[in-house]
Amino acid sequence: MSQPLRLGIAGLGTVGTGVVKIVQQHAALLSARCGRPITISAVSARTRHKERGVDLSTYGWEDDPVALAKRDDVDVVVELMGGEDGPAKASTEAALHACKDVVTANKAMLAVHGQELAELAEANGCVLRYEAAVAGGIPVVKALTEGLAGNKVTRIMGVMNGTCNYILTRMEKAGLSYDEVFKEASDLGYLEADPTLDVGGIDAGHKLALLSAVAFGTKVNFDGVHLEGIDRITIEDINRASDMGFRVKLLGVAQMTGRGLVQRMTPCLVPKGSPLGRLERATNMVVIEGDSCGQIVLRGAGAGEGPTASAVMSDVIDIARGLRMPVFGQPATSLADAPAATSAAPAPFYLRLSLLDKPGALAKIATTLGDVGVSIDRMRQYGHAEGSAPVLIVTHKTTRDALDQALSRFDATGVLAEQPVAIRIEEV
Amino acid sequence: MSQPLRLGIAGLGTVGTGVVKIVQQHAALLSARCGRPITISAVSARTRHKERGVDLSTYGWEDDPVALAKRDDVDVVVELMGGEDGPAKASTEAALHACKDVVTANKAMLAVHGQELAELAEANGCVLRYEAAVAGGIPVVKALTEGLAGNKVTRIMGVMNGTCNYILTRMEKAGLSYDEVFKEASDLGYLEADPTLDVGGIDAGHKLALLSAVAFGTKVNFDGVHLEGIDRITIEDINRASDMGFRVKLLGVAQMTGRGLVQRMTPCLVPKGSPLGRLERATNMVVIEGDSCGQIVLRGAGAGEGPTASAVMSDVIDIARGLRMPVFGQPATSLADAPAATSAAPAPFYLRLSLLDKPGALAKIATTLGDVGVSIDRMRQYGHAEGSAPVLIVTHKTTRDALDQALSRFDATGVLAEQPVAIRIEEV
Repeated sequence: MSQPLRLGIAGLGTVGTGVVKIVQQHAALLSARCGRPITISAVSARTRHKERGVDLSTYGWEDDPVALAKRDDVDVVVELMGGEDGPAKASTEAALHACKDVVTANKAMLAVHGQELAELAEANGCVLRYEAAVAGGIPVVKALTEGLAGNKVTRIMGVMNGTCNYILTRMEKAGLSYDEVFKEASDLGYLEADPTLDVGGIDAGHKLALLSAVAFGTKVNFDGVHLEGIDRITIEDINRASDMGFRVKLLGVAQMTGRGLVQRMTPCLVPKGSPLGRLERATNMVVIEGDSCGQIVLRGAGAGEGPTASAVMSDVIDIARGLRMPVFGQPATSLADAPAATSAAPAPFYLRLSLLDKPGALAKIATTLGDVGVSIDRMRQYGHAEGSAPVLIVTHKTTRDALDQALSRFDATGVLAEQPVAIRIEEV
Repeated sequence: MSQPLRLGIAGLGTVGTGVVKIVQQHAALLSARCGRPITISAVSARTRHKERGVDLSTYGWEDDPVALAKRDDVDVVVELMGGEDGPAKASTEAALHACKDVVTANKAMLAVHGQELAELAEANGCVLRYEAAVAGGIPVVKALTEGLAGNKVTRIMGVMNGTCNYILTRMEKAGLSYDEVFKEASDLGYLEADPTLDVGGIDAGHKLALLSAVAFGTKVNFDGVHLEGIDRITIEDINRASDMGFRVKLLGVAQMTGRGLVQRMTPCLVPKGSPLGRLERATNMVVIEGDSCGQIVLRGAGAGEGPTASAVMSDVIDIARGLRMPVFGQPATSLADAPAATSAAPAPFYLRLSLLDKPGALAKIATTLGDVGVSIDRMRQYGHAEGSAPVLIVTHKTTRDALDQALSRFDATGVLAEQPVAIRIEEV
């Protein structure tokens, strides 16, 4: 075990340079903890000559990450390029075919090709690790795969896209519209090149799909994640929800039910006073509920050079220490298919309606809800100057189906001034 | 790896029966996750015939845990008896001498004999694991030893005694005195047989000493933990601190400084709005700060059958999976001595004074503080009916030495109606 573990790093963006820094600055500490040195043999990136704030001069260089993966002096390929296909997948496959271990931060690649790559890795006796793919610096993959492995997981919840949480909390604090804060976030460089990955919930959905696979022993099923972005959340909903004691979060929920696997990444309301409700700015939080452990909450930075590099290094260190595990906590060939649940579990909902100023308007709404079996927990009508009145309703637990029925019948009442807004309230 | 991993469980209290339940109820899940079954060969406890709510009839029985540890059909000894010496230590040593792995929840034994036991384990090629010894169901030992192993840890903080946190939050909520809530907690069975272990901070101090060893690569040094219990915290301090925006917590802090290793388990004030400040009832929280990961917060149940058994099982599962590590994250023989810091880092302090109703009283106090170089951040004097006025002071950062100088000079001013109270404010 005193042979060095030799890394090949593919991708030298923020996270890649962060990893180089840790390997360089903490050589003694890593060697003490692993019982062997961790070294870098070679690196690869799109642009060779670029100021990155780290000295790469002693490392080999490869223009092609696939060539990097095949080098004889590389034991572990650290894939930090991103993208679900292309060079990331090609170099990962090349490494696994050459029986080399792979550490990646690539949630998209694993969410889409995780099963295939895990089978390839395990057939070749390799490990494929991805702590950095989920919730940045929070060691949540390890917590779930190992630390809580004695539990039947009953639910996972997570705020796992820092940009969305930044946008939502900034809207509330500053009283700004979605578009205004979106522009701010964009100017600050917080958004992915394709912002839909963030605000459309796709990036967070990838992460949820990975956690689900581990939690429930099922094949990664990203297509089964019900996705809804935050782009339709208005400052009015944020403020009204706050009045009713809630905060809006882009919340991931995964649960195995009798109806199949529920995986949702959608805007939800959570109680203001709950750990999730209190989560501010770009911080991430993952809540894991197990039959023995109860509720475990993990909180930390979900992105950034240091936190993500820290997660990458935890995988590298495990490999250096000889800690080897199946990709999703049990052999990939033993993972079950995970049919998506056909309907979500009942929940209370928040409804925001704008009622025309007509006698009996509220009664019609209440009657319609009653007709489809949706009962009202709390209702609040606001004073108004114009021709329509804002009305907020918090329902008792109901199915989304019943609620959709009510929403479709509202049209026929002729008392709505605008399209109603309905947001699920997650019981945390 | 398809041979079963055979446990011998010594101690069948709450945690022991919890472990038996998980092994029995989750046999298929554990086998899938570990690639081999986990079975129980034999058990040991003080009383054999006692209703425990689990069927033990198929397991061997040993009156003597040392005999249990030596059984040929036991691969791993699960030590859940407690106590820093006696049968716990004897059976742990017997197991390690017989080259068997040990999983324990025994913080006292490890805090006192950790170095010696770790050396014994490692000399015999065994692992000795203790996830359940720290913060119940929260997988914090794993997070620190593995998940954040790429970091130089800069600080660890933790509320790790649920009973103390229950007492402090209950005092505030119900407006009850320490003695009243202590009695309640005692009646509810929340206290250890020797309550000093809880309220004196000893139990939490044991946990902190274990985390320090892993975090800083030092020999466990429980004697170096500066301990102060919660028994002198009054409802008045809780209320006054709350007025100033703080909550009182029994807070553990470990930090490596130029002056040595700081390990404190003392009542501290933390901002009400911080994750630590918001921690209610018996919940535990550990905050780990690293140079790359930033601040990671872990929260969950710190005690109880399910959570503690969950932690025990995570160690058992690691062993079943073949994941083997040095006890404190690096070889025990390589751990450094950890001289205790001779003085604590400067911090702001909360001072509660009761001033006699004399002209110039407050001026004398302020002058005394100024004379020793302690400057005042905020001050509040309360209205009063009797002969003395409550005064609260929040100082700027100062050393405990300077503060102690001030406190000793206060006597000479002749304006104090009572002994002053000083509590450190931890910057979280």
